[in-house]
Amino acid sequence: MDYIRIRKALISVSDKTGICGIAAFLHENGCEIISTGGTGQALQSAGIPYTEISRITGNPEAFGGRMKTISYQIESALLFDREKDANEAARLGIEPIDIVICNLYPFAKVKEAGANLETLIENIDIGGPTMLRAAAKNYQSVAAVTDLTDYPDLMAEMKANNLSLSLATRHRLMLKTFNYTADYDSLIATTLDQQAGQRTLRLAFKDGLPLRYGENSHQQGWFYRGRNDSPSLSDLRILHGKELSFNNIADIQSAVESVRGLLNYGCAIIKHKNPCGLAQAADQLRAFQLAWEGDPVSAFGSIIAFNKTLDLAAAEFLRLNDPDKSCRKFIEVIIAPAFSEAALNYLKFHKNLRIVAINPAALTGTFDYKFMNNSLLMQDTDSTLYSQLENVTENHYDTSANLDLIEFGLQAVRQLKSNAIVIVRKKPDDSCQLLGMGAGQPNRLVSTRLALDKSRENLEREFSQKKSDLDLPAYVRQVLTDSLLISDAFFPFPDNVELAAAAGIKNILQPGGSLRDKAVIQTCNNLSVAMVFTGTRHFKH
Amino acid sequence: MDYIRIRKALISVSDKTGICGIAAFLHENGCEIISTGGTGQALQSAGIPYTEISRITGNPEAFGGRMKTISYQIESALLFDREKDANEAARLGIEPIDIVICNLYPFAKVKEAGANLETLIENIDIGGPTMLRAAAKNYQSVAAVTDLTDYPDLMAEMKANNLSLSLATRHRLMLKTFNYTADYDSLIATTLDQQAGQRTLRLAFKDGLPLRYGENSHQQGWFYRGRNDSPSLSDLRILHGKELSFNNIADIQSAVESVRGLLNYGCAIIKHKNPCGLAQAADQLRAFQLAWEGDPVSAFGSIIAFNKTLDLAAAEFLRLNDPDKSCRKFIEVIIAPAFSEAALNYLKFHKNLRIVAINPAALTGTFDYKFMNNSLLMQDTDSTLYSQLENVTENHYDTSANLDLIEFGLQAVRQLKSNAIVIVRKKPDDSCQLLGMGAGQPNRLVSTRLALDKSRENLEREFSQKKSDLDLPAYVRQVLTDSLLISDAFFPFPDNVELAAAAGIKNILQPGGSLRDKAVIQTCNNLSVAMVFTGTRHFKH
Repeated sequence: MDYIRIRKALISVSDKTGICGIAAFLHENGCEIISTGGTGQALQSAGIPYTEISRITGNPEAFGGRMKTISYQIESALLFDREKDANEAARLGIEPIDIVICNLYPFAKVKEAGANLETLIENIDIGGPTMLRAAAKNYQSVAAVTDLTDYPDLMAEMKANNLSLSLATRHRLMLKTFNYTADYDSLIATTLDQQAGQRTLRLAFKDGLPLRYGENSHQQGWFYRGRNDSPSLSDLRILHGKELSFNNIADIQSAVESVRGLLNYGCAIIKHKNPCGLAQAADQLRAFQLAWEGDPVSAFGSIIAFNKTLDLAAAEFLRLNDPDKSCRKFIEVIIAPAFSEAALNYLKFHKNLRIVAINPAALTGTFDYKFMNNSLLMQDTDSTLYSQLENVTENHYDTSANLDLIEFGLQAVRQLKSNAIVIVRKKPDDSCQLLGMGAGQPNRLVSTRLALDKSRENLEREFSQKKSDLDLPAYVRQVLTDSLLISDAFFPFPDNVELAAAAGIKNILQPGGSLRDKAVIQTCNNLSVAMVFTGTRHFKH
Repeated sequence: MDYIRIRKALISVSDKTGICGIAAFLHENGCEIISTGGTGQALQSAGIPYTEISRITGNPEAFGGRMKTISYQIESALLFDREKDANEAARLGIEPIDIVICNLYPFAKVKEAGANLETLIENIDIGGPTMLRAAAKNYQSVAAVTDLTDYPDLMAEMKANNLSLSLATRHRLMLKTFNYTADYDSLIATTLDQQAGQRTLRLAFKDGLPLRYGENSHQQGWFYRGRNDSPSLSDLRILHGKELSFNNIADIQSAVESVRGLLNYGCAIIKHKNPCGLAQAADQLRAFQLAWEGDPVSAFGSIIAFNKTLDLAAAEFLRLNDPDKSCRKFIEVIIAPAFSEAALNYLKFHKNLRIVAINPAALTGTFDYKFMNNSLLMQDTDSTLYSQLENVTENHYDTSANLDLIEFGLQAVRQLKSNAIVIVRKKPDDSCQLLGMGAGQPNRLVSTRLALDKSRENLEREFSQKKSDLDLPAYVRQVLTDSLLISDAFFPFPDNVELAAAAGIKNILQPGGSLRDKAVIQTCNNLSVAMVFTGTRHFKH
């Protein structure tokens, strides 16, 4: 049956928000209302007549409210097949109930308030899920309403359809109901397990979107949103361009994470989840330029994020409509909390460029999960940059004067796959730039070499484009001497220091904690290198 | 009340396995049994007397079985507080039920059998969850039994305690019940959503184990097992050594994944989730040696996995008790499906070495998940090595003769972080070795350079240890010419081919699919390089 006329309603809610509105609407349209204890009182105060549930069940509410609705009469009225079982129901004196409006004891709320086991147990609803599940099972004839934000739409539908609800609506309500009871018992199970010292974890996701494919075209892929209302990466809005791929989404996360903590205007350039360009500056275009210059080769085909509304001046750095096509900078995705209209119009010139709006600042999560073969590693997110800044060498690095650079560099190294080394520098205008990085290497020395090579390569290009009193080697050396090298974990041997110092590096920041810290510090002193211990490692695998 | 005497039982099960055993036990010990339809028939056939539930509820089973147990009488008997509500219960004629034995309509089974929506809906149990949840809520006085594998223990406990069950047992059963109903409604919700074209995903984990910390010491960490019974990484058994760390577990996964598909005896050496050594050979010791020689520096402090029972000869390669301590190879974790007694005793010499038993072959999963800021990327696992092996150049690589090397190398490159390049070789005895790898770089050219550098470094060491008619440069070049270079994704430009060919590489395998494939192939032809297209990319981020 497509439309069902709502002639009899059972209303029993814990959260009474909006209940009198829909109850009055039903009553005024000739629907009989059955209700229970507290809900009944609310209806009475609002002058809405109702039938006490005990008149239907033939039984009194009992045991401090533990028994109210559960009865042969109520669940029969919800469950019987309106066609097949009609005679049997008539013989048994069961009259159909067409809608159940019910939300459950606030287990989540009392849990969050820190309730003890007894209070938690008292707040496990038994009758409510029974009614709701019975109504949902019989959605062919019954509407199960759990979500008070649905009341307005339901009233509108009933108003437009002679107090009837469609099968499509009842089906939608059914799906919502089983998700609601699944969430409810999931929270009960995990909470009571935790009280008992057992750890159960239940993660729920919704609105799964099939992607063109997974990491590779022979793998299927999907993107889900968390079922809770916390900010989610899936809050992103695609303003323009091709569909996002699985790898785009993964890289967007890294881009957003990389740019989130930056000061002033920040820009991150991501390739395969690693930032290969990162900068912060007082001007957005400058931040973009400085980030791009961190690895102008890899930046092609990259994912780029900004921490503030993108303006036209910065967007034009891509030279998307330059008559000389070789000057156009091809990138895959551009991300910002918002885009000025001029910037957006400009970027749309590139037909395939994915323009994505999401605010990195909103995306702070508490936990991080790694799935592995039907197991799960869970951890706090890595949200501490450093626990100390202690000069451990004869030469000192001025940590106060360079706090912005230190925090900038730690954010870069934290986001890179281990072993990770970054070389960062502060320009005269206080902008900060990732000059070179080495990441994902099994041997830290290789990462240091990669970071130095990239820095030198960038400085050689820079030298060729500017006037300097120095020759090239002296220029490169001078910049490296003024820069800061940061390691995501301690140096197991002094070799990294030797390699860096030979290139001109004079300032190194690392967590410390190796058995050979003394030898490492001694090497620094021999080479006039200043070393700062942060006390905080940033492995990321 | 600690122990509760079981005087009255309600038994209503869908899966009747073992039910007559426990019912007979209860009956013989003077417990009254209440039962329903099909369960009652089973008891009757076994000669076990019981009370028809309709004698308690006063109502007939109705509506094709939709109404059986739900009633004011049954749920009151389960829910009332045995102390506070005793008088009220007596007045209402409610007698306590002390145990509910119930398992639910087999929704999972009919789902797996491909049932349609109507059949799925019919298999949603309403009365069962109501009884179970009521009994569990009142676990202070009632036992809720959902799992038939619990029957023997419960009978043993009742036998030993004058037909009584302890509070601890009832509490444990309560936790099990809410997890059971949470799983049940989770499956219903996701299944019916899927039928309606909506994608909901619910992942459940159990037995969460707090780790010393997460990826870093300022992060808390936990390790969970999947709630389903599929093989899980948490099936691993720690036979010896220090507690596993968060990063150990993550690396163990990579080690197990790296070694799983290898032929004969396989060995993988992992650093930061990347294999830096990988080999297969007809002999286990040889496989270990060849893997170690892939990166003997990084292998220190690594995680090592074998695909077959580890024997003493291979284990002794670590030289753990060599009087010359500098010869001892320090590693973090050693993994194998099993260990010979001699190997195990030998390895235990190293107090801190974590010895882990897990069978890589058992750990095949269907899906892979990436959690990102309250969202989730889900994909099929990357289980296809190649879709074709097509020679696209004038020179041909003998893919039939080298199928073992190709599959070996593809397994290596598939496991490495992108961009990934491997150089692999086959020895005269048909063993295969990872000679050098480059991984995790934003620019593929850097990965190629890293793989070539590592290969050359390894070959220089090899040259110094053996006799050869060639000089060093010729030796290195000869081995590289006989080796195979594999790229995890296509070459966007010919530069990688030029770099590799300059080092002596003559055989390259890659997926193909670049806009510039033609130019890449032309470069190969100009440089007499054979190139094979696989059609299958292996990005891994």
